[in-house]
Amino acid sequence: MLRTHSCGELRSSHINEVVTLSGWVQTIRDKGGLIWIDIRDRYGLTQLVVEDEGEKTAQIIETARKLGREFVIQAKGTVIARNAANPNIPTGEIEIRLEELSILNESLTPPFKIEDETDGGEDLRMRYRYLDIRRNDVREKLVLRHKVAQAVRSYLSEQEFIEVETPVLIKSTPEGARDFLVPSRMNEGQFYALPQSPQTFKQLLMVGGMDRYFQIVKCFRDEDLRADRQPEFTQIDCEMAFVERDDILNIFEEMMKYLFKNLRNYELPAFPHMEYADAMRFYGSDKPDTRFEMKFVELNEVAQNKGFKVFDDAEAVLGICAEGCASYTRKQLDELTNWVKRPQIGAKGLVYVKCNEDGTFKSSVDKFFDQEALAAWAEKAGAKAGDLLLVLSGELDTVRKQLGELRLEMGERLGLRDRNVFSPLWVVNFPLLEKDEETGHYHAMHHPFTSALKEDAELVKTEPWKARANAYDMVINGVEVGGGSIRIHDKGDQSQMFDALGFTKEEAQAQFGFLLDAFQYGAPPHGGIAFGFDRLCALFGGVDSIRDFIAFPKNTSGRDVMIDAPSPVNNDQLKDLGIKLK
Amino acid sequence: MLRTHSCGELRSSHINEVVTLSGWVQTIRDKGGLIWIDIRDRYGLTQLVVEDEGEKTAQIIETARKLGREFVIQAKGTVIARNAANPNIPTGEIEIRLEELSILNESLTPPFKIEDETDGGEDLRMRYRYLDIRRNDVREKLVLRHKVAQAVRSYLSEQEFIEVETPVLIKSTPEGARDFLVPSRMNEGQFYALPQSPQTFKQLLMVGGMDRYFQIVKCFRDEDLRADRQPEFTQIDCEMAFVERDDILNIFEEMMKYLFKNLRNYELPAFPHMEYADAMRFYGSDKPDTRFEMKFVELNEVAQNKGFKVFDDAEAVLGICAEGCASYTRKQLDELTNWVKRPQIGAKGLVYVKCNEDGTFKSSVDKFFDQEALAAWAEKAGAKAGDLLLVLSGELDTVRKQLGELRLEMGERLGLRDRNVFSPLWVVNFPLLEKDEETGHYHAMHHPFTSALKEDAELVKTEPWKARANAYDMVINGVEVGGGSIRIHDKGDQSQMFDALGFTKEEAQAQFGFLLDAFQYGAPPHGGIAFGFDRLCALFGGVDSIRDFIAFPKNTSGRDVMIDAPSPVNNDQLKDLGIKLK
Repeated sequence: MLRTHSCGELRSSHINEVVTLSGWVQTIRDKGGLIWIDIRDRYGLTQLVVEDEGEKTAQIIETARKLGREFVIQAKGTVIARNAANPNIPTGEIEIRLEELSILNESLTPPFKIEDETDGGEDLRMRYRYLDIRRNDVREKLVLRHKVAQAVRSYLSEQEFIEVETPVLIKSTPEGARDFLVPSRMNEGQFYALPQSPQTFKQLLMVGGMDRYFQIVKCFRDEDLRADRQPEFTQIDCEMAFVERDDILNIFEEMMKYLFKNLRNYELPAFPHMEYADAMRFYGSDKPDTRFEMKFVELNEVAQNKGFKVFDDAEAVLGICAEGCASYTRKQLDELTNWVKRPQIGAKGLVYVKCNEDGTFKSSVDKFFDQEALAAWAEKAGAKAGDLLLVLSGELDTVRKQLGELRLEMGERLGLRDRNVFSPLWVVNFPLLEKDEETGHYHAMHHPFTSALKEDAELVKTEPWKARANAYDMVINGVEVGGGSIRIHDKGDQSQMFDALGFTKEEAQAQFGFLLDAFQYGAPPHGGIAFGFDRLCALFGGVDSIRDFIAFPKNTSGRDVMIDAPSPVNNDQLKDLGIKLK
Repeated sequence: MLRTHSCGELRSSHINEVVTLSGWVQTIRDKGGLIWIDIRDRYGLTQLVVEDEGEKTAQIIETARKLGREFVIQAKGTVIARNAANPNIPTGEIEIRLEELSILNESLTPPFKIEDETDGGEDLRMRYRYLDIRRNDVREKLVLRHKVAQAVRSYLSEQEFIEVETPVLIKSTPEGARDFLVPSRMNEGQFYALPQSPQTFKQLLMVGGMDRYFQIVKCFRDEDLRADRQPEFTQIDCEMAFVERDDILNIFEEMMKYLFKNLRNYELPAFPHMEYADAMRFYGSDKPDTRFEMKFVELNEVAQNKGFKVFDDAEAVLGICAEGCASYTRKQLDELTNWVKRPQIGAKGLVYVKCNEDGTFKSSVDKFFDQEALAAWAEKAGAKAGDLLLVLSGELDTVRKQLGELRLEMGERLGLRDRNVFSPLWVVNFPLLEKDEETGHYHAMHHPFTSALKEDAELVKTEPWKARANAYDMVINGVEVGGGSIRIHDKGDQSQMFDALGFTKEEAQAQFGFLLDAFQYGAPPHGGIAFGFDRLCALFGGVDSIRDFIAFPKNTSGRDVMIDAPSPVNNDQLKDLGIKLK
């Protein structure tokens, strides 16, 4: 090894030992007769020192004066106590009195500072990602990711899950998002697709008796990238046979508790189950942030037919009660009104009711509602003196969405969304189908392999759009961490589902014939779940962006700006593949 | 759960317990008043029994008589002792007296037997892979693969290696094998490539200070598939910074010992280091099977200039000594001669010398060599009475290859290649470059990022084709399990290597500019290794074929015959990608 110790491990117990360190130059301070160098590696930072003692140290001092930031050096010397210990770093009690110093590699001045607070913008950091990774912040995120993956594997292996690698070169299916395609040279004119998920393979593993499967696996979607979406992303993919819904929920609730306990020393509470319908009704979202209450209140009954046309014409009048906010100023209320009117939210206006400390009410619609009417609102909303009611109205789905956003914003403003508090739940019984408003067609809300609730089995045949799926999402702090379902395992039920989704028999057979075939040979009851691994890591890390949990992410145009990919290829390559550019 | 126990866990200690099992029908024996059903799951096999007791059991018997092989059933009953225990299965002491029996799913008669000895041919088994996976043999291989992967991760994590996921959508480089390409929709006319290995990314992680990296990762090569090659395969990919060669060899030698100890309870011996030149000289192969000696003997000196033109014209006359084979019959020797003359081997003929027990010699070239001459051969070869010398001649490289094959064949015939004995070694100091006989160009034998041995640094500048690489392969039982090298970490050295490989400055910059750039910012000395994971699992499993260690393998045309991929895609998809078929 080019070192005897890492730059993070020396303590006063090592004093008088002769050690060799290797790493990068973090800083150099040259006080003439005395030079200090901070050397850094993945494990920490150690201070090197050399005092000018004439010929004896001439070589070392000459070398030290050639150094610049990020030079790679090897340093040999004796561990000594520091005059003044630095309590901010673990090696702060000691320094190394240099006896040998050599340059292993030089460095140009890096384009941004390799420090916790860097001066590098996003683009520069992505272009020089290998330098960004030297920063503690990015490195720690990648190390955390590693630890989460190891802990997941360890937990699931203990539970008799087997990690099975499913293929990356598979078949294109028009269902769902757009596939990345891979032209086949050996089968000219034909294409592989990269998997959007290993869904059908994991189901085939269940048919194959594998019983408990998992995989931490790359998946691919060729979608227009919104912020924080990546064309390749990682999933913890799981499937079990001979189980019912609650068996799956229990196993993965325990997994999450295990991860939080082991990686954050945090005891998660039991996960309540919330009906999808209730999530939408009370939080306006299928992934409610339950770190705080502030549930929606339906005000139609008390707010309509009082002459306020905006409410009277509305399908829904919904409010939330912001505790202790009756003292909001005109300015604050205007600001909130502007906030909900932003194009991202799109509300037409915001009605407020202040529940004053003296028992009176002050609202933006005093013209239409007297004190008694407002008192009825407050009662309905469970608002007490000092609280502020915020009310939106309009088409039900729209209001729910808008008020959901406002609820989150108020939670944020009131400090109710602590990143170190975790509130998990299961949202269950999603609708089976979802209407595409553009085409009027129904498509599977989860995916076409999801079974309906037993009690809705008849509905699937008659009015499938009313049926509920045996599907569930794990939600923590308003983030959809994972989702899954009990699958269809009967060929007839699966065919019926393809019918409901508008597949012809031929299309269903061409696309999913292998699965329908497999279902004829003894498919066991089974179900599963998949977790967004990048997102889960970000949740653990207490940040919103998944970007730094990915070693080499792509930008929103799907480009890797470091290696400059994608890129043009030469014509011979295309010729071999039997394709050409348009 | 649809079961209280698995089909593999019930013992006599469970007698009198009421249990529920779920699984597949393995066999049914109907003796009229008594029906036995063997139920199978991933964990084992349990016998169910029902005796006709009139109305009480009518329902169960009716259901049982509907069953066929591979039906999925749920069975509830009481554990009872068997009249005659079956010592061949772990649950053989007990059976379940049925109290309830239900069919969870039916099955068509499977196209082949789901048994250890199946009647299904390769093609049928691949088409119905999900049924093949139900067989113990295939399932056990996949479970072993899981265990190897877990053990690798556990060992490397202990050693402070971090698993980092590198991207799958990268950039095409013309170096090496053919890339799979992925057209980019968002960057029309441009392509991603799937990685042949994460080589450059792992080096960038070293530049990024990650220090110890590993990944169990899918890699892709669009090559014409020979038997047992897959277009997608899995690699254990590793890299370390601040190390020298022997540091890497030690860590991974220990890893292999750990795996063998933990997964096979086998103590691997220390790994000897063998020069590439010696491997070629003594075994005719860079991956010698050292479970047995039978080293090559150079016979030119004693065999040439005795009037036998075949030898006199040959560049090399090489022999091996097969112990105790002097008793081979004419027929056996003819068969061996035919064996070396097969097109796969391509020798023109085979010379033998029997060292008879009476001290005389009998050879196929007695006409040219008297007893004294043959005694000189025997002495040179260290052959004793009772041994058989087998001699080939011709162009050196060709003879080595042919004699290497013959050596393996003789080892096999002599029972010297026991699958339960493991003989590991490191082959070191490979040539840096390799000449492409077709084009006359040199290319990197390992890859263009491999450094030369320090002592050959000058040669790289003057006669690079003579230089040796600081590269190494791990070989076990004649299988190249892994290979790696100490990398170049200096921009100048890397440019020089691209020169030697015939890259123009522009080509080098266009393809590997990001790596050359990175080397300007403080690249540490580093090196690594990659293991063929599929192959490693097969070695552990004691079989030659990797096929059954892959859940869903492709055939030699790169097709997945189960899902029927690759396949044609619709024109809209191609249009979106800006490509068309030729």
